[in-house]
Amino acid sequence: MSNPIITLLTDFGHEDTYVGQMKGAIYCINPEVRIVDLTHEVARHDVVTGAMMLREAWSMFPAGTIHVGVVDPGVGGGRRAMAAESGGHLWVGPDNGLLIAAIRAASDEPRFVALEDSQLFREQISTTFHGRDKFAPVAAHLSLGLSLDQLGPAFDDPTPTPTNAPVQEGNVLVGEVLRVDHFGNLVTNIRPEHLPGAPDQQVTAQIRGLPVEGIYSTYEQVEVGELLVLWGSGGFLEVSAREKSAARVIGADVGTSVVLSLSAKDAET
Amino acid sequence: MSNPIITLLTDFGHEDTYVGQMKGAIYCINPEVRIVDLTHEVARHDVVTGAMMLREAWSMFPAGTIHVGVVDPGVGGGRRAMAAESGGHLWVGPDNGLLIAAIRAASDEPRFVALEDSQLFREQISTTFHGRDKFAPVAAHLSLGLSLDQLGPAFDDPTPTPTNAPVQEGNVLVGEVLRVDHFGNLVTNIRPEHLPGAPDQQVTAQIRGLPVEGIYSTYEQVEVGELLVLWGSGGFLEVSAREKSAARVIGADVGTSVVLSLSAKDAET
Amino acid sequence: MSNPIITLLTDFGHEDTYVGQMKGAIYCINPEVRIVDLTHEVARHDVVTGAMMLREAWSMFPAGTIHVGVVDPGVGGGRRAMAAESGGHLWVGPDNGLLIAAIRAASDEPRFVALEDSQLFREQISTTFHGRDKFAPVAAHLSLGLSLDQLGPAFDDPTPTPTNAPVQEGNVLVGEVLRVDHFGNLVTNIRPEHLPGAPDQQVTAQIRGLPVEGIYSTYEQVEVGELLVLWGSGGFLEVSAREKSAARVIGADVGTSVVLSLSAKDAET
Repeated sequence: MSNPIITLLTDFGHEDTYVGQMKGAIYCINPEVRIVDLTHEVARHDVVTGAMMLREAWSMFPAGTIHVGVVDPGVGGGRRAMAAESGGHLWVGPDNGLLIAAIRAASDEPRFVALEDSQLFREQISTTFHGRDKFAPVAAHLSLGLSLDQLGPAFDDPTPTPTNAPVQEGNVLVGEVLRVDHFGNLVTNIRPEHLPGAPDQQVTAQIRGLPVEGIYSTYEQVEVGELLVLWGSGGFLEVSAREKSAARVIGADVGTSVVLSLSAKDAET
Repeated sequence: MSNPIITLLTDFGHEDTYVGQMKGAIYCINPEVRIVDLTHEVARHDVVTGAMMLREAWSMFPAGTIHVGVVDPGVGGGRRAMAAESGGHLWVGPDNGLLIAAIRAASDEPRFVALEDSQLFREQISTTFHGRDKFAPVAAHLSLGLSLDQLGPAFDDPTPTPTNAPVQEGNVLVGEVLRVDHFGNLVTNIRPEHLPGAPDQQVTAQIRGLPVEGIYSTYEQVEVGELLVLWGSGGFLEVSAREKSAARVIGADVGTSVVLSLSAKDAET
Repeated sequence: MSNPIITLLTDFGHEDTYVGQMKGAIYCINPEVRIVDLTHEVARHDVVTGAMMLREAWSMFPAGTIHVGVVDPGVGGGRRAMAAESGGHLWVGPDNGLLIAAIRAASDEPRFVALEDSQLFREQISTTFHGRDKFAPVAAHLSLGLSLDQLGPAFDDPTPTPTNAPVQEGNVLVGEVLRVDHFGNLVTNIRPEHLPGAPDQQVTAQIRGLPVEGIYSTYEQVEVGELLVLWGSGGFLEVSAREKSAARVIGADVGTSVVLSLSAKDAET
């Protein structure tokens, strides 16, 4: 088999050399591995959004891929460092809820180990940059074939991702915007399992008082600039505006409520 | 021969995992290929500028390189998906004018095929992310040696890049700013063939009423902060300010007119 | 030995295809080399900050790595183009002070050569983009095993990095903020050798009139939003705010003074 892939998801941005330093730490151990940037623009310290983005992206990679996530406000403090195996993928990062949503989506039987063996880390460990000094080297060792069991003791109480599931209230579903993407699409926390059996035509979304009727499948089904709701490529419901930024058109942002009702179209007429 | 290179040019930005997901889709098919980001900061939905940027960059890569371009406002709608061969390079993306300027610059005898065979795509094809679900897998298959003819039926009427050529009006040439780069350089749509035989010293550019005389070859020929005109590294005429942003100094942006006149220096005195 | 790594540090940003073009120029010569982006967001033309960032990052890479730095306001003018060897690493870029801080940190006996042999460059050399036309090809040739001596004549008077060392004034040390990172941490020009033997608890920093007492080792030692001073992962003293932007909390920016005094805590009480 060829060398596995290591993916990186962080809130480090691009202004600094932090991501480059992580890659250096990996290549010092395995110069042949392939490294893919998932994103480094998770909002600073935003574990919930980072968890959602990793959940959207991990399954695009081949089995054996090692996913390193570093959104780590507790770095250097008491939080556990962890690695996991789930669904044939491997995961490395802080045990703060960042990785666990993706891990549980990958399989129902994940295995977790705590990272405590300093022999696996860089020789000098800073208190502020475990992405470089602990997680990158551990991922590199995994890419060379070290098994999960060799990394540290198993545990079974990983910190859950803070919940942000939509809420059912009578015949309406109240979700919210979790993320505004580069195009201004409003990615919500609503997934198909929250709308079992709802016919697309009979769903109406309300966002900042604006009704958006139906669930469409392509942007071209509406006029340029018009709002529409569709299932995004990551499996979450999105509110979009064709060739425009829905965030700007609506004046919505992370946290804005999205209220779905069934047959609201009939109710309104 | 070694594995070919796949380049990516999109308007996806860096906030999301979209580019990372495209790479995952490629590596699932060819884990050994090399992927190079040309840029992911084309202005959203701006096919014309994306086309110009691809035209500036493609020839820096070795023959056999596969260029994937995704600026695709019509995704999921009626526009054709295409691949092409031209000048020993390969091209994959939407048939909306994004690729064709570079393709025609690469050779006079390009070949085009339509992408219709779902066996070449990811199993589940979203309606909003063909970069990941169609173009990335097709590029990966090409990198493994699949020939253009195996991808789909040939066609010969690709959608042209919307024209933005400068206009000759009497003895002046009226161009415009197509792109403002990271340094604030104003990259125009004027190429050497638009100024045949014009001596550099006798060209005067007018931009927002400011005359900029002559065409220089290096920034150091003027004082810090001073405006100058030169042929940029991509082959287009640029208006720059030494160690400053010409865009800010002049107050110019995409679309600002740049009027060239010959011997205007003499005319003015 | 496996193929070496080439790192890139520039002020090119991500909006354009300039970085991608450099990579194309490298892969045309050595299609098997690995390229790592250190950062492309050095402030435009800011040689001093670029030098500091390279100094922070180079040692994370294995011996044999080739570091290409391009912050090059004098491109096309009189400044020398150079390559160097130091501490088992190689360096390529303009001789304007960008590389020299890292080179001198790597060893006391660096070797320098001037790049003058046009056979090592791209066939057509622009006057504005030596990153692509000179430095990238030279790095690629080095990665294929060309020795430093084969590149050009030796010299021993490299342009120094403009000094920005802190100043001792009586019993206080006056430093300044050199860089604001993605998290709003204020990275100063103060290193441990400037504070020999000073006990962490007895150091007080003054920044914009605010006293920050002690030097801590982890963010969690203070409350969320509270200011603290610590040794950053790159070896420079940093002023931070836990899970907040110290730059915003303090209203500080590049150039803001940071005044350290010993036992100031006692002095104040």
